[in-house]
Amino acid sequence: MTHYVPPLADIAFLLHEVFRVETLSIPGYDELTPDVTGPVLAAAGELASEVLAPLNTIGDREGCRLENGIVRTPPGFREAYARVAEGGWIGIDLDPAYGGQGMPHLMNTLAGEMHVSANMALNMYWGLTHGAYNAIHAHGSEEMKARYLPPLVDGRWSGTMNLTEPHCGTDLGLLRTRATPEADGSYRITGQKIFISSGEHDLTENILHLVLARLPDAPAGVKGISLFLVPKFLVNGDGSLGPRNAVSCGKLEAKMGIHGNATCVMNYDGATGYLVGEAHKGLRAMFTMMNEARLSVGVQGLAQAEAAYQQAAAYARDRLQGRAATGPANPDGPADPIIVHPDVRRMLMDIRSFVEGGRALITWVSIGIDRYHRGNEPDAEGFVSLLTPVVKAFLTHRGFEMCVEAQQVFGGHGYVEDWPMSQFVRDARVTMIYEGTNGIQALDLVGRKLPSDGGRHMIAFFDEVKTFIRENDADPVLRADFLDPLKAASKDLQAAVEFFMARGMKEPNEALAGSTDFLHLFGHTIFALLWARMAKAALAGDSDFHRAKLATARYYMQRQIPASQLHLARIRSGAGPVMALPAAGFQEGR
Amino acid sequence: MTHYVPPLADIAFLLHEVFRVETLSIPGYDELTPDVTGPVLAAAGELASEVLAPLNTIGDREGCRLENGIVRTPPGFREAYARVAEGGWIGIDLDPAYGGQGMPHLMNTLAGEMHVSANMALNMYWGLTHGAYNAIHAHGSEEMKARYLPPLVDGRWSGTMNLTEPHCGTDLGLLRTRATPEADGSYRITGQKIFISSGEHDLTENILHLVLARLPDAPAGVKGISLFLVPKFLVNGDGSLGPRNAVSCGKLEAKMGIHGNATCVMNYDGATGYLVGEAHKGLRAMFTMMNEARLSVGVQGLAQAEAAYQQAAAYARDRLQGRAATGPANPDGPADPIIVHPDVRRMLMDIRSFVEGGRALITWVSIGIDRYHRGNEPDAEGFVSLLTPVVKAFLTHRGFEMCVEAQQVFGGHGYVEDWPMSQFVRDARVTMIYEGTNGIQALDLVGRKLPSDGGRHMIAFFDEVKTFIRENDADPVLRADFLDPLKAASKDLQAAVEFFMARGMKEPNEALAGSTDFLHLFGHTIFALLWARMAKAALAGDSDFHRAKLATARYYMQRQIPASQLHLARIRSGAGPVMALPAAGFQEGR
Repeated sequence: MTHYVPPLADIAFLLHEVFRVETLSIPGYDELTPDVTGPVLAAAGELASEVLAPLNTIGDREGCRLENGIVRTPPGFREAYARVAEGGWIGIDLDPAYGGQGMPHLMNTLAGEMHVSANMALNMYWGLTHGAYNAIHAHGSEEMKARYLPPLVDGRWSGTMNLTEPHCGTDLGLLRTRATPEADGSYRITGQKIFISSGEHDLTENILHLVLARLPDAPAGVKGISLFLVPKFLVNGDGSLGPRNAVSCGKLEAKMGIHGNATCVMNYDGATGYLVGEAHKGLRAMFTMMNEARLSVGVQGLAQAEAAYQQAAAYARDRLQGRAATGPANPDGPADPIIVHPDVRRMLMDIRSFVEGGRALITWVSIGIDRYHRGNEPDAEGFVSLLTPVVKAFLTHRGFEMCVEAQQVFGGHGYVEDWPMSQFVRDARVTMIYEGTNGIQALDLVGRKLPSDGGRHMIAFFDEVKTFIRENDADPVLRADFLDPLKAASKDLQAAVEFFMARGMKEPNEALAGSTDFLHLFGHTIFALLWARMAKAALAGDSDFHRAKLATARYYMQRQIPASQLHLARIRSGAGPVMALPAAGFQEGR
Repeated sequence: MTHYVPPLADIAFLLHEVFRVETLSIPGYDELTPDVTGPVLAAAGELASEVLAPLNTIGDREGCRLENGIVRTPPGFREAYARVAEGGWIGIDLDPAYGGQGMPHLMNTLAGEMHVSANMALNMYWGLTHGAYNAIHAHGSEEMKARYLPPLVDGRWSGTMNLTEPHCGTDLGLLRTRATPEADGSYRITGQKIFISSGEHDLTENILHLVLARLPDAPAGVKGISLFLVPKFLVNGDGSLGPRNAVSCGKLEAKMGIHGNATCVMNYDGATGYLVGEAHKGLRAMFTMMNEARLSVGVQGLAQAEAAYQQAAAYARDRLQGRAATGPANPDGPADPIIVHPDVRRMLMDIRSFVEGGRALITWVSIGIDRYHRGNEPDAEGFVSLLTPVVKAFLTHRGFEMCVEAQQVFGGHGYVEDWPMSQFVRDARVTMIYEGTNGIQALDLVGRKLPSDGGRHMIAFFDEVKTFIRENDADPVLRADFLDPLKAASKDLQAAVEFFMARGMKEPNEALAGSTDFLHLFGHTIFALLWARMAKAALAGDSDFHRAKLATARYYMQRQIPASQLHLARIRSGAGPVMALPAAGFQEGR
């Protein structure tokens, strides 16, 4: 059974000392005082540690089973899911008109991180419900919303996203699933979808599939895709369940990880579906789900690293092996705990400085989401849109690497399944892939988000960095340890943007060859800004927590921020070295 | 079934154009002409692609089973192992006096790379035999050698290494397994060993366990460890098998990967054993095995990356998705192959430039082994000793990362077990851990190998770099593209050595905190030297192969060598940021 301790003090520090959320002028934020956030997040944490975490290993070992079209989730998942639904966690930030609790999105993110740390595969069953809710809420008719949203919000039903087909993942223009109109205004959906998370399971009474398909008159490519709602059981006018729809799980995928989540091949054999939003505008509607899903996947990367960190730190304190180079730390024992060794400490500090920086990032971006959803601040939408690929790809790439480092702390014990480390690595691996691979995120960042609105949102980011530096430059401790590295990273990022503007406009491959490095350079610069802000808040405090925060901030600045130069050097090498070898040079045998 | 194409042209280029092995004055190397190396390596490659590779997925899926004390290997492993033994591959570089083929160690390494690419878990059954042979050959009595070596060489028997116990891995001073002397000169061995690769299986008639244990009069710590030979079946004077010994497999470990290899808990219940070498000097004897094992593990990291690269390159050529930013490359098809996208090409070039550089490294080091084993050149031993931790840790750390990148090329298909990518990642992961974790390799490099013999071997490496630069400085192409980056990396490495000398002497943690970064900095510098040498050889040729080699060399120089600065910056940040947080700061809950 995997032990998990909710990082409540760290979350409270971010909310009330760094971002001081209760002082922000965002509707609903005035209620986010410590006496509200504290108990809510403590309850979310208790659910994570007491109910979800104990099932994480079981989910991995037992997996899901498909028997006669029915998918059975691992033992205990049904009971745990019921607890989640009863607690109102699925609708924590959803519209009270449909039964939600109407709290800021920020609270959903922070509770979600803990639930994902405790049990990622189980969390996914309601994580995707959230996305389905958003698509219907934003694009569905009033009647559709009234009929389908309340049971999603209270967890009786769940939702899925159906995009991928065997021959088409990233390039949705190739998709073949067909929708033909019926006389009653519904559609018949026919085709096959693959890699459908939570596609079929025994946790809820009904499942609402949101499916991309083509109408008969659809133009070719992505401009001919429409979004349909396809319930597993058709729903009567009074909300009761009608007959089973012609949609079924054809196969469960055997995967590297997230065994507790049912990843399904879904077959649509003339299933009844309902158009969501406008015909041929399905991609836009799907992106309402997708953007949120991408942020949630970033949270998954971070959350797995946090869970893995906790295990590694505990193991490093317990495992006795060798002696400190500076003299025995445990002279009465047979050996010292391995935490005395600098290389073990390096791994722990790598992970810790990543997860605490990442938690600041998801907090910052979630506040941005609330700014535009609740506060109608249009610039906030651009900010979130710019940062979405970074949250998704940087947090998952680094999060996976951190799980690997945490596994490394265990030596051989990290490789055997008696300990939970292999699972964290295997589970985290998918986060770099799904909801758009990390390469696609980098492409989205460089090709779309960076130049959008004339580059306004990127300029706003640089302005935010400059303002913070200007406002704090008089503090000598902040300046030397935190502002100088932030300045250096920001300068490298600026140089990369200039390189893309000078070279990438004429020759797109010059920018695309550096897209992944740009995303990482941006990620590190964002972390530098957030660590500088956290350092400032920590300097105002005087406790072991605040001193540890400062030490961790210094670690990130000194050991991680120098990576900005490496990424800039790669970006400046341009497309030449990447594309020099012709495609034929990759034939077999050499 | 996983496809594997032996990289014969690349190996031939290294042997005969880069290192020109047949011209080196090492006993036996005059025979390594292309007409000898070509057919031998082609046969090794054919065994890999035809016999071993088809069983790789089966081994992963079926794994090993323990039934009534007997371990059954996956279907097909017995037949494949028999083919390996029949072909004489186990003894390719072993002493003809015991039935070996007496070829240079280099040939074993290159054949081994292919066998590991094809099926790492299966290869391990005879890979460890090689280590057991070496320990007995170097430290056993003549009688012991005559009795035990021939059946190891011909593959009828296999060997294992037994070091780890539940409470002790790295710190062998803690080990508890006991050896008590008997009147007949043998010993009774009692204790439990864990993580024993190939500890029990059905491939051979007998298994020879080399076991570390303590004699009754042993001093405490590592100076009281002796090495024993413990056969599964006792061996009669005529070489026939006698009664079963009191050693048994108590459990098979459930592992993240290498499912086809039986990783055993081994119980010694008063088993009969024979002292190998001197009493209390067992660690030295075990290191005869261990050093070779560490080099072999480096080869595993490289070999898994090569196998994963082949799959990724093939997938990238086949998978149609999206269009090239520079205009359609496949205008008649529904989309372009993903190899047109710069970020996909980046991943392929990362892996390719790593595996080709790594193959040059294992070739270089294997020549060094032959220099001191066959040529009795004592400096060569220092060279190999210095490079051993780099080969082990750099090739496995980067090799694992490259498997992850190759998996990434597949998108969602990389995460499901229908494709072989998950297995490459899971199998490669162990190479960073076993035979001494990569952190231990870095400690060995910085704490032991770097200062050994007054730093002579490190100085010799710098001299080799300087000599190569001086001899080739007149060539403008070599200078700009290859020598300048080599110079830059070498300068950073030199600066790191100076930092350790100035700071690490007084305060060991100042050096230890930078040990992993030093190992990586050294690895990149070695790769820079080897890529410069390969570029020189490639410039002398005029074929697509040579042009591809040059393009790959340039890629490594431009995109990987700048990492040297990052590693130096981290090293120079010293122990401060790493050790600032007290151990108590890693308690649970924050």
